[in-house]
Amino acid sequence: MSAARAGPLFDDAFRENLGDLLRWRRDVRRFRPDPLPPGTLERLVATASLAPSVGLCEPWRFVEVADAKRRVAVRASFERENRAALGQQAGERAALYAGLKLAGFDAAPVQFAVFAEPDPEQGHGLGRRTMVETAAYSAVMAVHTLWLAARADGIGLGWVSILDPAEIGQALDVPKHWTFIGYFCLGYPVASADTPELERAGWEHRRPAAERLIRR
Amino acid sequence: MSAARAGPLFDDAFRENLGDLLRWRRDVRRFRPDPLPPGTLERLVATASLAPSVGLCEPWRFVEVADAKRRVAVRASFERENRAALGQQAGERAALYAGLKLAGFDAAPVQFAVFAEPDPEQGHGLGRRTMVETAAYSAVMAVHTLWLAARADGIGLGWVSILDPAEIGQALDVPKHWTFIGYFCLGYPVASADTPELERAGWEHRRPAAERLIRR
Repeated sequence: MSAARAGPLFDDAFRENLGDLLRWRRDVRRFRPDPLPPGTLERLVATASLAPSVGLCEPWRFVEVADAKRRVAVRASFERENRAALGQQAGERAALYAGLKLAGFDAAPVQFAVFAEPDPEQGHGLGRRTMVETAAYSAVMAVHTLWLAARADGIGLGWVSILDPAEIGQALDVPKHWTFIGYFCLGYPVASADTPELERAGWEHRRPAAERLIRR
Repeated sequence: MSAARAGPLFDDAFRENLGDLLRWRRDVRRFRPDPLPPGTLERLVATASLAPSVGLCEPWRFVEVADAKRRVAVRASFERENRAALGQQAGERAALYAGLKLAGFDAAPVQFAVFAEPDPEQGHGLGRRTMVETAAYSAVMAVHTLWLAARADGIGLGWVSILDPAEIGQALDVPKHWTFIGYFCLGYPVASADTPELERAGWEHRRPAAERLIRR
């Protein structure tokens, strides 16, 4: 087998660093307001585009949100839905929920939404006939790729899902048929951690991975 | 800021290797039949569990498929749906489709399905009220994490979506309400490449990432 066909070989040092990257990737809500270097989002979107996509249809659509009025509209949707979610929490959980910081709108210098084109011409439909949701799944993997590449640069990402998808599509004036995946805050994190903020705040804790694997 | 709070710093060499990992990760369909070292799937599932999950609900459910009869049932579903998909391709596309290898059932030593628990108690509903699909999205990021960790070990993963989700749930005897994410073949790849097989086969080609980024 030629070297070209074999591709790169990764060593133990790389695998250890990759493990650190996965352990220290966080859903960041506390950002420093410092700007990111020019071209950061463009570079990260290029890396994200290396993600797998069903039928090679590359359905991800990144929408950078720079306009102040549009940002206000997104934040208003979050505040509405977050109040509604708080109203559904009972007793001690309500107090705990009220104390959580669930978005980084206040300081994140870069904000963007991600959508999926649900029925792209690219890819010629391959792999989507019985599972149309694989287009959205492909966009999710592009987000995750961007997330890891950002963390490797010391940049944090926060995923906001406490939003009304229809309101966000309208606020950002994108095609109505696009599938909203999420809204994202990007910037330098105030701190790093190898434990999720929801775990440190006492909201939830991780369970042993072995419980998630069954055999048939 | 203390070293503990700052977390690991990643250097240019790591970032370059990470870029190689992303560029050389492939959707593998051609496997060597050699077995994987014992415990490989358990180890990869543990790494996958470092993935982000909405509300820290860890909704991913991995189902290793070892039983020969269950494997036959999955393969039969694929063959049925693949014939139906071929029937929908017209003219030259049909001949091209017929020549594609779209699953690695024949040789992959390890096979597993992934499902999502759509409404887990864990996480107390946080982040899912307006977007129930974020549970499935979390499972997709666990798959993507496993995919990258496998590639770093020289192991290939292939995602099969040309299946009837209800048939797979039944064939694997899992709770009816679980959301089927995909079926996966895992093993040593016959070859490595930095270009998708669908591109090498002339099915589709990647577009410039900049076309996927718009501004608002």
